[in-house]
Amino acid sequence: MSDAATAFAPGGVGNVGPGLDILGLAVAGAGDEVRVEWTSSPGIQVLDPGHASLPSDPMRHSSALAARAVLAAAGERLERRGLAIRVRKGLPLSGGQGGSAASAVAGAVAANALIGQPLDRKGLLAACLEAEEVVAGRHLDNIAPSLLGGIVLIRCMETPDLVQLPVPDELMVVLVRPEQQMRTADARAVLPASLGRDVALHQAAQVGAIVAALALGDYELLGRAIDDRIAEPARARLLPGFAEAKAAALAAGALGSSISGSGPTAFALTRGRPAAERVAAAMVRAYAAAGQPSAARLGPVDRTGARLVDSAGVAR
Amino acid sequence: MSDAATAFAPGGVGNVGPGLDILGLAVAGAGDEVRVEWTSSPGIQVLDPGHASLPSDPMRHSSALAARAVLAAAGERLERRGLAIRVRKGLPLSGGQGGSAASAVAGAVAANALIGQPLDRKGLLAACLEAEEVVAGRHLDNIAPSLLGGIVLIRCMETPDLVQLPVPDELMVVLVRPEQQMRTADARAVLPASLGRDVALHQAAQVGAIVAALALGDYELLGRAIDDRIAEPARARLLPGFAEAKAAALAAGALGSSISGSGPTAFALTRGRPAAERVAAAMVRAYAAAGQPSAARLGPVDRTGARLVDSAGVAR
Repeated sequence: MSDAATAFAPGGVGNVGPGLDILGLAVAGAGDEVRVEWTSSPGIQVLDPGHASLPSDPMRHSSALAARAVLAAAGERLERRGLAIRVRKGLPLSGGQGGSAASAVAGAVAANALIGQPLDRKGLLAACLEAEEVVAGRHLDNIAPSLLGGIVLIRCMETPDLVQLPVPDELMVVLVRPEQQMRTADARAVLPASLGRDVALHQAAQVGAIVAALALGDYELLGRAIDDRIAEPARARLLPGFAEAKAAALAAGALGSSISGSGPTAFALTRGRPAAERVAAAMVRAYAAAGQPSAARLGPVDRTGARLVDSAGVAR
Repeated sequence: MSDAATAFAPGGVGNVGPGLDILGLAVAGAGDEVRVEWTSSPGIQVLDPGHASLPSDPMRHSSALAARAVLAAAGERLERRGLAIRVRKGLPLSGGQGGSAASAVAGAVAANALIGQPLDRKGLLAACLEAEEVVAGRHLDNIAPSLLGGIVLIRCMETPDLVQLPVPDELMVVLVRPEQQMRTADARAVLPASLGRDVALHQAAQVGAIVAALALGDYELLGRAIDDRIAEPARARLLPGFAEAKAAALAAGALGSSISGSGPTAFALTRGRPAAERVAAAMVRAYAAAGQPSAARLGPVDRTGARLVDSAGVAR
């Protein structure tokens, strides 16, 4: 066993369009990095929560909660030694890019490495879910892609049954975050508790079509299927500039666009990088015209998911 | 232009498990055959409706309605000549095997052939939908696979956007029909008008998983995803013996089982023909034990869909 381990976990898009709670993807680029090391004092301490607004209380930081769950699942009681955690936050807070999930995943993967990898994928998912439940809600659509990489369908959460979907080679993801924070709890509060059957069946058809489009490499179908009639209509009114940014994305050639996670980040899918760059610029301009400064990033789907890195952040 | 044309259209499964209204498949074997010929009397006559219980009124028989819609779409007014229709009914009435859709599809395809194929696939779909709306309800999940073959996802009905899904080579479909008739209207009346969000999202995840399973050739995932929490719970209580037959199917090795269309036929999916034969026998025994005589058939997915045949029923 080593004295320290560091893991990186990517952010991405939860609630991919109509895939509310059940479809997520990881985006290459930004992510959270968590370093865990043994200390002589029992329990878990958060030496660096990664951001001034994040709690140092280990019972409230998703990274520490996930590390704790890993150690508990492995039977490590932290009575005679403890864990010190340092978080390097690469993802925005309350941004809708899966930041709390990435911190949990990186914390879990690093802690698991520190104790000799006793937990398998299922154990890691359970540990991360326990953490995510405390800070953002009991959902796997950010955790699963951050841990596993790719585009993941959550067929069943309680007895996890995850399906990694094919990723078309030219698929690019644009993420544009306006300067607004959105608490997941607030974004969930506006979701309707019940739905008309027609809306439910439409939504199911879109999810099926997204999966088919990914499998068939049919980019146009993928775009048509990004048609969410549950979360997007409810949340768009909490997000000034979103409607304009989405319209600008589609006009600039995006295949489809919707809200990433519970927002405020908007995402768009494109075929190829030049289209992604045009779409990102158009969305930023549209937010600006609506009085919202914003920041864009873009990248392909991260197919790797969480990985151990050395202390300089390089994959081991 | 010829004087007569005959078309065959296969039956199959609508509402494939959680794919209520949006997912259907054609099954090789039984289907309806429709012969149309020119006559000197204006209008449409149904010379043989195919079954004593089916109407000879051309405004009430799906095959005549679809043929009429095809001629209307092509601008053929039937003022100086008319159409005579003979139906050979291979599918059960009100059986849940897509019989009204198959009659409509065969009628449309035969009529279209008679006038030189002016309608494309989109035009044929619209004509069949017009007919199906009158006799069974406005849905494409039986029409589309009967016309096109295969397993079809209806992403959008009103501006038809159909996705033909990959069909795994060893997939077999078992259809077991108890001696009970079920009117589509009665079966629709018990469906809930609104749903809890959790049920809707679960259903969407299952539809996504079915599509993924078909694309990946993952038979076990396909079985797990046949988990309908909307139609099956509502309709099962109208179908004596169904719960027992489903349990018997799963115990005999079916991947999954649910209600075909709006019932009373139950379907099961298996990997390979020997499993299909065991499952069919087990389901028939279970229905018998529940006091319901039943008839089983099985076959692979019909990948061809509707086709013109000569008057002896052989594909041209």
